Amino acid sequence: MTVLLCGRFDPGEQEAWLAALGQACPDEVFVSDRADPRATAADVALVANPPPGALQGLPRLGFVQSLWAGVERLLADPTLPPAVPLARMVDPSMSAAMAQTVAWAVLALQRDFFRYARQQRAGQWLPGPQRRADDFPVGLLGLGEMGAAAARALTGLGFPVHGWSRTPRTLPGLRCHHGEAGLHALLGEVAVLVNLLPLTPQTRGLLAAPLFARARPGLHLVNLARGAHLVEADALAALAQGQLDELVLDVFAEEPLPPGHPFWLHPRVTVLPHVAAQTDPATAAAVAAANLRRWRSGQPVQHLVDRGRQY
Amino acid sequence: MTVLLCGRFDPGEQEAWLAALGQACPDEVFVSDRADPRATAADVALVANPPPGALQGLPRLGFVQSLWAGVERLLADPTLPPAVPLARMVDPSMSAAMAQTVAWAVLALQRDFFRYARQQRAGQWLPGPQRRADDFPVGLLGLGEMGAAAARALTGLGFPVHGWSRTPRTLPGLRCHHGEAGLHALLGEVAVLVNLLPLTPQTRGLLAAPLFARARPGLHLVNLARGAHLVEADALAALAQGQLDELVLDVFAEEPLPPGHPFWLHPRVTVLPHVAAQTDPATAAAVAAANLRRWRSGQPVQHLVDRGRQY
Repeated sequence: MTVLLCGRFDPGEQEAWLAALGQACPDEVFVSDRADPRATAADVALVANPPPGALQGLPRLGFVQSLWAGVERLLADPTLPPAVPLARMVDPSMSAAMAQTVAWAVLALQRDFFRYARQQRAGQWLPGPQRRADDFPVGLLGLGEMGAAAARALTGLGFPVHGWSRTPRTLPGLRCHHGEAGLHALLGEVAVLVNLLPLTPQTRGLLAAPLFARARPGLHLVNLARGAHLVEADALAALAQGQLDELVLDVFAEEPLPPGHPFWLHPRVTVLPHVAAQTDPATAAAVAAANLRRWRSGQPVQHLVDRGRQY
Repeated sequence: MTVLLCGRFDPGEQEAWLAALGQACPDEVFVSDRADPRATAADVALVANPPPGALQGLPRLGFVQSLWAGVERLLADPTLPPAVPLARMVDPSMSAAMAQTVAWAVLALQRDFFRYARQQRAGQWLPGPQRRADDFPVGLLGLGEMGAAAARALTGLGFPVHGWSRTPRTLPGLRCHHGEAGLHALLGEVAVLVNLLPLTPQTRGLLAAPLFARARPGLHLVNLARGAHLVEADALAALAQGQLDELVLDVFAEEPLPPGHPFWLHPRVTVLPHVAAQTDPATAAAVAAANLRRWRSGQPVQHLVDRGRQY
């Protein structure tokens, strides 16, 4: 079987993937250059944010496994073969990394550690009152694998968690909401909103002025999903008006965040360089390999993308 | 029964204590001014860092309940009546607050969030490699109520935890060490050391050059216990030499940390203004009241200080 590895990689990243994939699937032939003549014989493509058109002209292609959790750019490529099954990456070690980032951000907001960091830079010793975790309800948008892992971490630390998803879901220890009415209800309850939603036409631009206006004044916002979920100008206006208090942002409309962008130096915005949950080739290669074996042996593959709902 | 409330309080703090204590013990007479003639009739003293000599000349005094977890300053007062039982404050909500601070600091160190904050201030977008929690063993010095709560939070987040205490202890999910040899063993294993020890003649100055030299190079250090545990000059030298990587400090030899102290502006030191675990009068008053009722009815009081071991 020929496996095409195709994507845009940082220096050294492609080599790390090939090494990890070679260990996880010792019997497969990997082709990592789309221009290699052997690429046209690919049965399977493993993709990491590939350039548009990369999956055209592969007559034997029967299965596409994304090495990224988000597939919205892949689905936006009109040349993506419509009938080929496509799977998202769901790697427990990535979900664990996301849960850590969520726990860190929520703890820092609850306990004012971002404010203390600003006071340190100003040489100020100003102890403030201490909030209890049970007085700091968290709203979690998105209850997939990452959302579930984040919810477990937060409830374990004593935070009341309200979850929200497109369709009704039930998770232990959470108050689960869904749909438009559920989002209204959640916004009235929570001190901090954490976004882990997939990017779809329905969720694009969700974090914007109308949502901020319905939340409790001084809402904290943590966006670890996609930059296009947030209307950045609305966030800056809401920060200025006090509708939003502190922001923790890992993703942006343009990445890297351009020099001079107002988020860089805003005292109440924490900018992370898209590191909330990085794919680890060592663990993700094993997940991809297991799915690839399922596909080859005719078993149902896991985490198949629903092209209708777009994730 | 006459209860003397005696200590050094921030503005408004004494009033908050009196209100909370009044609710928790509606039948007691509280005297909050040591100069008040009624104070000499005190049966019980509730103390929060009282000035030396404050508990002299109280002939009826039968029980002292500290409203603070640490009692080293109280024990250093030679006028403290030697035979009167003395209890430390052990408040589950304070242990929860400490566990939150520990979890936040360890997550920030594991995932390089302090470094990303420095990079943000420099306008740098530099994603780095992502450490796994199971590759980031934590050493926890002190396995009392706060240590146990911190250990539960850390193991729940997937960190391997090595605990250390003076005497042998066993806690679920931890590798427990004790004594001098145990400290050596622990130091060879851990990426970060979190200090929650009581301050005693044995632990004073423990965090110093000899300990840093025995640890893995690039050790991270989190001191949330007492400033006198740390030899500050040794910490600065170890930071300069790379023996220590990042420090998170909540307590200092002199508090507030004096203006111009090198910790204020050190790029790899996080300074907190003694807020890791603040006493909450609402919950602590109930704890004190329960102990007071135990003492009055002749039952054994809880969390009695052993004057020999000094905590």
